[in-house]
Amino acid sequence: MPGAGTDKTKRWAATAGPVVILVEPQLAENVGTTARAMANFGLERLRLVNPREDPLSARAPAAASGADRVLEGAERFNDLEGAISDCTLVLAATAREHDQAKPVIGPEQAASEMAPRIAAGETVAVVFGRERNGLENDEVGLADRILTLPVNPAFASLNLAQAVLIVGYEWFKRKTAGALPFRMPEKSAPASKQQLLAFFADLERELEKVEFFRPAEKRETMVINLRNIFLRMQATQQDIRTLHGVVLA
Amino acid sequence: MPGAGTDKTKRWAATAGPVVILVEPQLAENVGTTARAMANFGLERLRLVNPREDPLSARAPAAASGADRVLEGAERFNDLEGAISDCTLVLAATAREHDQAKPVIGPEQAASEMAPRIAAGETVAVVFGRERNGLENDEVGLADRILTLPVNPAFASLNLAQAVLIVGYEWFKRKTAGALPFRMPEKSAPASKQQLLAFFADLERELEKVEFFRPAEKRETMVINLRNIFLRMQATQQDIRTLHGVVLA
Repeated sequence: MPGAGTDKTKRWAATAGPVVILVEPQLAENVGTTARAMANFGLERLRLVNPREDPLSARAPAAASGADRVLEGAERFNDLEGAISDCTLVLAATAREHDQAKPVIGPEQAASEMAPRIAAGETVAVVFGRERNGLENDEVGLADRILTLPVNPAFASLNLAQAVLIVGYEWFKRKTAGALPFRMPEKSAPASKQQLLAFFADLERELEKVEFFRPAEKRETMVINLRNIFLRMQATQQDIRTLHGVVLA
Repeated sequence: MPGAGTDKTKRWAATAGPVVILVEPQLAENVGTTARAMANFGLERLRLVNPREDPLSARAPAAASGADRVLEGAERFNDLEGAISDCTLVLAATAREHDQAKPVIGPEQAASEMAPRIAAGETVAVVFGRERNGLENDEVGLADRILTLPVNPAFASLNLAQAVLIVGYEWFKRKTAGALPFRMPEKSAPASKQQLLAFFADLERELEKVEFFRPAEKRETMVINLRNIFLRMQATQQDIRTLHGVVLA
């Protein structure tokens, strides 16, 4: 998201995560953007099967925007069999139906299935295919699961880094139980009813002065409605001090 | 994801969704990739506040890879106030802590909060800031909620289209209840116990012939363990026919 970059003062978030395997990536730039997407969600282990361009060429690290650590640690393999040999669970990411008798899962379920395996020290991989035409049937055939995304069927084409981004997002969300990097500052405790009632008293007295509560038979309803507006706010002590100041002014 | 593109034979998935507002996007290319990310998750309504480049210039539609429909329908505004005037709920997407007394939510909760409002016919918007420095404090001040992503704090920089992608993904996942574009083909019903027991009988007879079950006192345990391997598979009728053929061969 705009507005924040690499921050070397902060701890890299995740310790263990799935290995990301790219099969025959065509452009170094896409390897770079994939590394960046991995870094966003704390994934570190990248494996490249027979990359068509040198992933450490000028374009890849530039596209990675500082995720050099992922790129520099990338391992290379000549074939997918070699890249998955130490893995116990392999997911093949594909947007195409390969018509294989293999469970098809989404990114959220993928995270759920990978988490206990990785926590137990197993090596788990998600395999992504070529930019242009994805994974071959025999490559999907090596996997335990097919991983696909819920997408608009009329517009199902995600680029490589974006597919990795979403898989990484669901992984990280699960790993951190959805914890966000910051929350609403809590500078002030909730207002007590005593403070609220004092505010209502002054508000209603000022409104009496300007003859707001007319006609008289509607006064009670008007007061209740007005109080409910402020009660729905779940106001803090500071909120009521501010509003009280407004009324007295 | 690689391997699938725009498919005009398929129905555009979503009917109503949040409006995406980009405040002063600097590069037409980023407007294009944002339109593509929106299209992936069935979002159609794009609003641009004071874009720095013409979003319909050559580079934007190219980057959008066919999401021209989103780009061509984009509305332009001179300020954010104008872009949100018909909205009833506005979320400001930001990676920075703005220190404002406003609830901070993630993309999943954003989808939950937006869904009933949109279903009720309200216009809801998610506002994204400039590529370089995000949203200004006063712009965040116009929103009802702050939307931020769970990201690696040491590497929190997502590009504009990727932030939109994840918000769109959670929206679409909720809207479609996580339905995936395809599932495992179910060509064969689960095997009956009768079929399994016939398979076990032949398997065990063949293994007797090659004196597999030695020593004799371990025979019972070996049979149980072997049967459990096949029982864990939750095999289909076709699976057992195939394995039965293997044994008889």
